[in-house]
Amino acid sequence: MRKIEVCYTPELIQLYPLEDKVVVVVDVLRATSCMVAGLANGVKEVRPVASVDAAWEIAKEGYITAGERNGVKVEGFQIGNSPFEHMEMGKSNAKIVQTTTNGTLAIDKSAYAPHVIIGAMLNVSAVAEYLKKYDHDVIIHCAGWKGKYSLEDSLFAGALLERLKSDFTIGCDAGLAALTMYNAVKDDIFGFMKTSSHVQRLGKLGVIDDIEYCLKEDIFDIVPVLENTAIVVPEQ
Amino acid sequence: MRKIEVCYTPELIQLYPLEDKVVVVVDVLRATSCMVAGLANGVKEVRPVASVDAAWEIAKEGYITAGERNGVKVEGFQIGNSPFEHMEMGKSNAKIVQTTTNGTLAIDKSAYAPHVIIGAMLNVSAVAEYLKKYDHDVIIHCAGWKGKYSLEDSLFAGALLERLKSDFTIGCDAGLAALTMYNAVKDDIFGFMKTSSHVQRLGKLGVIDDIEYCLKEDIFDIVPVLENTAIVVPEQ
Repeated sequence: MRKIEVCYTPELIQLYPLEDKVVVVVDVLRATSCMVAGLANGVKEVRPVASVDAAWEIAKEGYITAGERNGVKVEGFQIGNSPFEHMEMGKSNAKIVQTTTNGTLAIDKSAYAPHVIIGAMLNVSAVAEYLKKYDHDVIIHCAGWKGKYSLEDSLFAGALLERLKSDFTIGCDAGLAALTMYNAVKDDIFGFMKTSSHVQRLGKLGVIDDIEYCLKEDIFDIVPVLENTAIVVPEQ
Repeated sequence: MRKIEVCYTPELIQLYPLEDKVVVVVDVLRATSCMVAGLANGVKEVRPVASVDAAWEIAKEGYITAGERNGVKVEGFQIGNSPFEHMEMGKSNAKIVQTTTNGTLAIDKSAYAPHVIIGAMLNVSAVAEYLKKYDHDVIIHCAGWKGKYSLEDSLFAGALLERLKSDFTIGCDAGLAALTMYNAVKDDIFGFMKTSSHVQRLGKLGVIDDIEYCLKEDIFDIVPVLENTAIVVPEQ
């Protein structure tokens, strides 16, 4: 049976060989949730970049600048890191260049894998169906928070494993822990998450609506993929 | 209120400043369980060392050689990594030099903290009482498995946090996850652990009795501490 493993932070990804793997990158609060929500609503592509300077450079090609540092919109950028802003950009079929504290770093560190896809609670069942059809082992790469473990990305891992546990062997303790935690709290994920450090941090920034939205499962059925340097939704 | 955080592996410990902290090092399977069991039964001191060569050097001073690599006793060593062997050595009040795959590395990486203590399921309540009396923030440093997350050390973290949650603020998501998982499985920890990769690996080596023993809570009421280069139980 194919194997699925969970890496809790980009600081540990060097322990997981990515050759021949599908890597699912997740940053529930909020980078990959924004990508999924935007692309599902008309955004044409998202260019994830590690630095603010790189974002300004790409903006010259007509990209909308999006992103945050420490949860706050980068000064001068057109939008921040709210999924509602990204959905709004879909109306004009914008192309977005995005840089965030954790999520774009996780994508960057995954980029040498042959297949990188974008996961969020918002599309978790679509990701599960995609992986079932694909004949590869899987690494779930959690963006975490500044190198540390984060609850929301682990909950995504648990939600995905719950959907895949009949099709894959869970190949590591991190996966078993994520699945156990997800099943313990899945009936009230938002209530549980209110206790987390990251939600308390973001709550102070007035983005509690974003958080509640990003924790919803299965709003969209798309699976964005990294193609060269851009995240797009391939035509079916 | 004082703060308590959990670091899931020695690969992440550089993210946690240890100055002015008490560090609780845990390697449930089996390094710190051996230390607690041995020291509670007459072992005089344990010298943790990172390499087999260093262990041979210290053995010349009359220390019993103990330890494993990849779960198997080091060739030529007097004992391996079973708590029963370590308890047996207590009868002669032996001094032990110990090297293991994960546990001694975690001690090594914690050693610059002002206070390092040794935790295991076997002494988890004693550790909790010790920390309550001590006026410092706490880091629980899990040894993990070759840099990765391990279930058993996280369960220890959860068991300790359950005992301390009225006295400390849980300062990170890793702690909230450990506490949630512990409470979800605490009625049958051994049954739950049988699904883990590490237990399956060790089970093949015929050490299932060790595992069952190491998962028992509160067999001993001692708290070993690192004093210079040796782990000892200070006189009360």
